[in-house]
Amino acid sequence: MLKLKDFQEAKERVDQVILPTPLIYSEAFSKEYRNKVYIKPENLQRTGAFKIRGAYNKIMKMSDEAKEKGLIAASAGNHAQGVAYGARASGVKATIVMPAHTPLIKVDATKNLGAEVVLSGEVYDDAYNKAVELQKEYGYTFVHPFDDEDVIEGQGTIALEILEELPNTDVILVPVGGGGLISGVAAAAKQINPNVKIVGVEPAGAASALAAINEDRVVSLKEAETIADGTAVKTIGEMPFDYIREYVDGIITVNDYDLMDAFLMLVEKHKLVAENSGILSLAALKKLAEKNKNVVCLVSGGNIDVMSISSMINKGLIERDRIFTFSVQLPDKPGQLEYVAHVLAEMNANVVGVEHNQFKNFARFSEVELRVTCETNGSAHVEQIINRFAKDGYPLTKLS
Amino acid sequence: MLKLKDFQEAKERVDQVILPTPLIYSEAFSKEYRNKVYIKPENLQRTGAFKIRGAYNKIMKMSDEAKEKGLIAASAGNHAQGVAYGARASGVKATIVMPAHTPLIKVDATKNLGAEVVLSGEVYDDAYNKAVELQKEYGYTFVHPFDDEDVIEGQGTIALEILEELPNTDVILVPVGGGGLISGVAAAAKQINPNVKIVGVEPAGAASALAAINEDRVVSLKEAETIADGTAVKTIGEMPFDYIREYVDGIITVNDYDLMDAFLMLVEKHKLVAENSGILSLAALKKLAEKNKNVVCLVSGGNIDVMSISSMINKGLIERDRIFTFSVQLPDKPGQLEYVAHVLAEMNANVVGVEHNQFKNFARFSEVELRVTCETNGSAHVEQIINRFAKDGYPLTKLS
Repeated sequence: MLKLKDFQEAKERVDQVILPTPLIYSEAFSKEYRNKVYIKPENLQRTGAFKIRGAYNKIMKMSDEAKEKGLIAASAGNHAQGVAYGARASGVKATIVMPAHTPLIKVDATKNLGAEVVLSGEVYDDAYNKAVELQKEYGYTFVHPFDDEDVIEGQGTIALEILEELPNTDVILVPVGGGGLISGVAAAAKQINPNVKIVGVEPAGAASALAAINEDRVVSLKEAETIADGTAVKTIGEMPFDYIREYVDGIITVNDYDLMDAFLMLVEKHKLVAENSGILSLAALKKLAEKNKNVVCLVSGGNIDVMSISSMINKGLIERDRIFTFSVQLPDKPGQLEYVAHVLAEMNANVVGVEHNQFKNFARFSEVELRVTCETNGSAHVEQIINRFAKDGYPLTKLS
Repeated sequence: MLKLKDFQEAKERVDQVILPTPLIYSEAFSKEYRNKVYIKPENLQRTGAFKIRGAYNKIMKMSDEAKEKGLIAASAGNHAQGVAYGARASGVKATIVMPAHTPLIKVDATKNLGAEVVLSGEVYDDAYNKAVELQKEYGYTFVHPFDDEDVIEGQGTIALEILEELPNTDVILVPVGGGGLISGVAAAAKQINPNVKIVGVEPAGAASALAAINEDRVVSLKEAETIADGTAVKTIGEMPFDYIREYVDGIITVNDYDLMDAFLMLVEKHKLVAENSGILSLAALKKLAEKNKNVVCLVSGGNIDVMSISSMINKGLIERDRIFTFSVQLPDKPGQLEYVAHVLAEMNANVVGVEHNQFKNFARFSEVELRVTCETNGSAHVEQIINRFAKDGYPLTKLS
């Protein structure tokens, strides 16, 4: 197991490439969840995630001979960019294997960092196997995303920074995928101050660390179902599991709606964007038993596609009754659409979608269905609209 | 006109309430626009915008008697929150007049900062008139958003911070609405270093400073049409115009598409969100004549509604061919929808919308129109899809 001195040495290496990510005190999250909440913004880290720490640490510890041969990794995400950046910074050749259908945007981001990209297989496991194959063929050094002690050592440097900046930290909330990040953070933090509580956060639909803890051995989940794709890991790493057993105090699981809330709050209150896996720690605040403590939420990464941002926001708007879709049955005669449009305009609801359907079976023969989507101001506003139509004899059916 | 000493004194006052907003070096914008680009992130300022500087400076300079009576402002935006926060911080009563239809979310944000909110009139001018009326009735001090020398003095503190942190700044790009921000920034910067170039940036659809410069007098635009609502000002302030004439080197105008590009780049590369007016400075980089200079982009505010973020992203996705809507004419017989769905699935285009229309007049009698919206990977992907359908004898019409 890694010692504090190992992490301190890693910090000297890692400091050569990383950006400083000083803690951000969050008035909004503090007030909402009755703790003193600090964000450790690794979404603002170089390449948009903490991964560069472990990758660069690993590379710097390689022998000259191994550096000469180059390294290989399998990843379609943050690890790919972390490895590529670290390799370029140290003048080592990197090959990254990605599944064949990896979005072009991620392939390009990795190529732009100077790595050679090999597209292979349907899913991550295929790419992983291909990487192992290439490793054997060319004598590359394999950089595992989490089941590697040098990588864990690099990730642990985050704990040194947190406790240097906020020595009286009570709790650190850490996203858990394969377990590399929390292993390093927990081992380093506990060896500085055993009273710091380390709590892992997993997506409820991919809680592989929790499953391992419950059965006291590494087990594989049948599926990983979550919008937090970066931590959708079915099997926690063997090495991370040892660290978690030794150093981690507990695991909290959060669902997709918790993530949505945290995402919107981060955007609205802090003007910051982070990926779904990155904000597991913030989403866990509502479930944290501790109150009035200094809680650091490690926001591990920020690489979210704008399309995912849009879908997250759209779901959030529906959830908050800022988007309201209803259907109403109307007599099939002129003037009905005008009536609906008039009422909505009067009530300040901005119509963004209308669908008219004659092919539906209603109680009365001459009725049609109208579906309307409009922008509203929240639950009270939606209620007013429903009541107004009801008063006119048109009961609405709320569809979202 | 304000002297450097005035700004320095203002800084001592303002420093009591503001958050530090250190410059962020932007690799992405630097590379794209061949300058050394720094962001001054006032979107991360308390209340989400620079406005608190001017408001607080004004309040702190009021006499005890005036403080006793309280102050008033008219605003539905950042100025409202800046004034409310500044008033609360100094224990002064604030009344903010907003147009009657101001979104609840903005009313609440201002109330939550302790201000009394009066809703009055249809548009800003009505609210402004109401505020003047209340000011006379109750002897309040009026805090104008830009046409006020104490406010200008407060905004100018930003220039002191920029030039302290980056003394060899060559150009500062500043969003211009009513002109208060650029007045303070330009006057302070030029008195520290006359060689710093100060360039204002206005929305092309609301370029009231440019109009005033061209006619060498303050003129009112007939309309202000831009997605940058915070700077949609028809008439530049009288006092700001004097400062602009004295200290500003030029004005760049940008359109809504320029803003969209800058917004997406800021989110994707920096994980930061800002409002449309806030990023005028970033949008202007593509039009800046200077190259290989130290350019500071003042990002003035971050208060953008999540609904606006979503619409910005959606427009961006269409623009980048990440969303593709087409119509195709099909024989009105079974199996046609399946054919289209099959081809799209094969080509990895994720269908997000389908509309089927029989009520359209085509060359052949038995044809129907199908409109499909799908997620695509960019222009090359869209081209491939179009070619594939063309090969099968189905020409697509691109609708977005």
